[in-house]
Amino acid sequence: MPSPSPVITLTTDFGLQDPYVGLMKGVILRINPSAEIVDVTHGVTPQNVLQGSFLLHHSHRYFPRNAIHVAVVDPGVGTNRRAILLETPVGRFLAPDNGLLTHVLIHGLDLPSTEGGSVELPAGWRAYHLTNANYWLQPLSHTFHGRDIFAPVAAHLSAGAASSELGDEVDSLRCLPMSTPHWRGDLLRGRVVHVDRFGNLVTDIPSSLLKPETTPLDPQRGAPCGRPSLLNVQIEAGDTVIHGLSDSYAEADGLLAIIGSFDTLEIALKNGNAASMLSLAPTDTVIVRRNH
Amino acid sequence: MPSPSPVITLTTDFGLQDPYVGLMKGVILRINPSAEIVDVTHGVTPQNVLQGSFLLHHSHRYFPRNAIHVAVVDPGVGTNRRAILLETPVGRFLAPDNGLLTHVLIHGLDLPSTEGGSVELPAGWRAYHLTNANYWLQPLSHTFHGRDIFAPVAAHLSAGAASSELGDEVDSLRCLPMSTPHWRGDLLRGRVVHVDRFGNLVTDIPSSLLKPETTPLDPQRGAPCGRPSLLNVQIEAGDTVIHGLSDSYAEADGLLAIIGSFDTLEIALKNGNAASMLSLAPTDTVIVRRNH
Amino acid sequence: MPSPSPVITLTTDFGLQDPYVGLMKGVILRINPSAEIVDVTHGVTPQNVLQGSFLLHHSHRYFPRNAIHVAVVDPGVGTNRRAILLETPVGRFLAPDNGLLTHVLIHGLDLPSTEGGSVELPAGWRAYHLTNANYWLQPLSHTFHGRDIFAPVAAHLSAGAASSELGDEVDSLRCLPMSTPHWRGDLLRGRVVHVDRFGNLVTDIPSSLLKPETTPLDPQRGAPCGRPSLLNVQIEAGDTVIHGLSDSYAEADGLLAIIGSFDTLEIALKNGNAASMLSLAPTDTVIVRRNH
Repeated sequence: MPSPSPVITLTTDFGLQDPYVGLMKGVILRINPSAEIVDVTHGVTPQNVLQGSFLLHHSHRYFPRNAIHVAVVDPGVGTNRRAILLETPVGRFLAPDNGLLTHVLIHGLDLPSTEGGSVELPAGWRAYHLTNANYWLQPLSHTFHGRDIFAPVAAHLSAGAASSELGDEVDSLRCLPMSTPHWRGDLLRGRVVHVDRFGNLVTDIPSSLLKPETTPLDPQRGAPCGRPSLLNVQIEAGDTVIHGLSDSYAEADGLLAIIGSFDTLEIALKNGNAASMLSLAPTDTVIVRRNH
Repeated sequence: MPSPSPVITLTTDFGLQDPYVGLMKGVILRINPSAEIVDVTHGVTPQNVLQGSFLLHHSHRYFPRNAIHVAVVDPGVGTNRRAILLETPVGRFLAPDNGLLTHVLIHGLDLPSTEGGSVELPAGWRAYHLTNANYWLQPLSHTFHGRDIFAPVAAHLSAGAASSELGDEVDSLRCLPMSTPHWRGDLLRGRVVHVDRFGNLVTDIPSSLLKPETTPLDPQRGAPCGRPSLLNVQIEAGDTVIHGLSDSYAEADGLLAIIGSFDTLEIALKNGNAASMLSLAPTDTVIVRRNH
Repeated sequence: MPSPSPVITLTTDFGLQDPYVGLMKGVILRINPSAEIVDVTHGVTPQNVLQGSFLLHHSHRYFPRNAIHVAVVDPGVGTNRRAILLETPVGRFLAPDNGLLTHVLIHGLDLPSTEGGSVELPAGWRAYHLTNANYWLQPLSHTFHGRDIFAPVAAHLSAGAASSELGDEVDSLRCLPMSTPHWRGDLLRGRVVHVDRFGNLVTDIPSSLLKPETTPLDPQRGAPCGRPSLLNVQIEAGDTVIHGLSDSYAEADGLLAIIGSFDTLEIALKNGNAASMLSLAPTDTVIVRRNH
């Protein structure tokens, strides 16, 4: 049996009410009829590059390492912003060079923060400026490079095209300003980065900051009763204080804080919508205090 | 040509604005790159287990009999509610043991109703409590077993893993209280169980109760003019009475009752939204009276 | 390696909150387990046949030429409206004969307009009235021929069934009244045909009418700096006048007009929603005036 093509994933702000995502798939399949295409999400808030960057970073690691991740949140389409292929040990990314790869880069470099602007690639990573129009759809529109550049390049890559054929190698990419949370004494300040369908407030505070430093990670492989202990904290969000971290949505009564599906701190409301109740939205601040 | 993997279907309340569904697909494809995955619906009302149960039951029979149906409406995720594999002659189901399999079980047992609680499996059916963590994603989250347990187990099953390897066999599953409609004299009482995109009110009253008992089913295979006759009835929904059943949406004028796409009684409004017009929603009562 | 099945695309007004699209896929895969299915869009406004026709026409050309395009916007389901297979040099179409193929036919015939009604097929095109119930799902519902007729017929076609087996050949199809825009002196009158997720107002004015007649199309294959020049025009939409055409969304300040992703005139608002700002919707008029 021939090995399947590498998976092509799609992460965009296109929504699903228009044919835009379908057209990208048509273009891919016309070039590589064996391509395997998976939607990660098309629900990025229109033109919200930083949210797209967060969702892309937290999604790609669940896919095979040879996957090709196409990400399009592209308010600068048709201008001279670059179109990029980024190759990393954990996946390949096709995206506009507008900061959409910020989270992938910052975590790859293990940086605590970036002021934005041009960032050099980590060792072992490679990037290419997509300039070879032979791999594009023609004629090229000024408004939809997801269909005209990123989709066909992804298809050619999945069919075996060499990266070096797609354009010139570059050694830095553009990042948005971003800081990752860290403890200052007993205080940890983070932000809401996403509100999901259930109204859960997803923050950028990673679970690693909420565990005692000496706790080994998951010593009992898969044993749900052997959960690592968590710090004794209280969480301040909007006008509310939540005492302690819950082990499940169901065990709490009303508002709760929990290590959520993005492996970050999440604030939820049992059988309800926390975002509506607290009137919180992305970029709002969440504070964690350590108790003694 | 190798035979394709069995289809894996997904039925959840995750919606499509978040990457949750995409992550489940990534996890599946990392384990079985040849997996074929189909979305049934992700539009179950958040945490509405009974609606999910209805949609799952009415969907699975349109898929191949070796399909693996993953259903996740799971407010108890992270608690000690069991995760289950159910094997039936018409498909395999992976779901939390919280009542999401109620409709599948009740129809498999041909029961008129259940008071809820523990229900023994029909003859020839088997169920397993998923406890073997070797088939799970690690580390296991407390909030997303769709990604961490159900998706990887579905992938391993589709790749040929033995059911008995996944956990211990069990002989009963949890059901929600539920009754199926039946005639009492000339009166039949049912409920709205789903409102679709068009505002059509889907009820739980099966078409079989609206046909004369002596009518053979579809004697003229596929002949649209040879439709079986229907009972002479009137339907009461909200403040309205509808006289008789229509043969198509288009033939009526205004509100109409029809045997709909779930093979149950449905109330619709020609070129409009019946649910809005009647202010009806799931769990509301619909009454059918037989005329003489 | 066996060549993959032809792609089956789906364009409907079913939305994604219900299982309707999933059921069509189940039916297809039960007949042809190797079928490749792609969603074009399920976001057609309920029962808006003309919008569906526009989106179908502008989408199909991005897919392989052997693709099978299933389109279902079908308010007349269950009546005696015909179900049709249309074979063209650029793709096969399965749809109700209610005008959903209007744009495909009008462009295939290169007609400036149609008054609606019955239209004869272009030379080299063939159409069949789907009457052979052996290729349908049984029993046939009165409400969902997408699942019961179009999906199984598409599956059988993709698996190699002969078109002539599906029903009798016909030589004309039904079209809706439609006119394509054209210049009258220095005035060009078109319409909004679609509003996308971003609030962009997509019109039916093709880019070809906005280019000087002597401009060769795309002489520099793929060179983004060598864009063909555009006419000097002003655009009137709602209460607003927009002067000139932009080369990208980002270069403008506020409202802009641009050749958009459907290769037609589009009105957009930088970082905003033009449809909301101008209170415009499908069927509203847009006027282009040529400056000298």
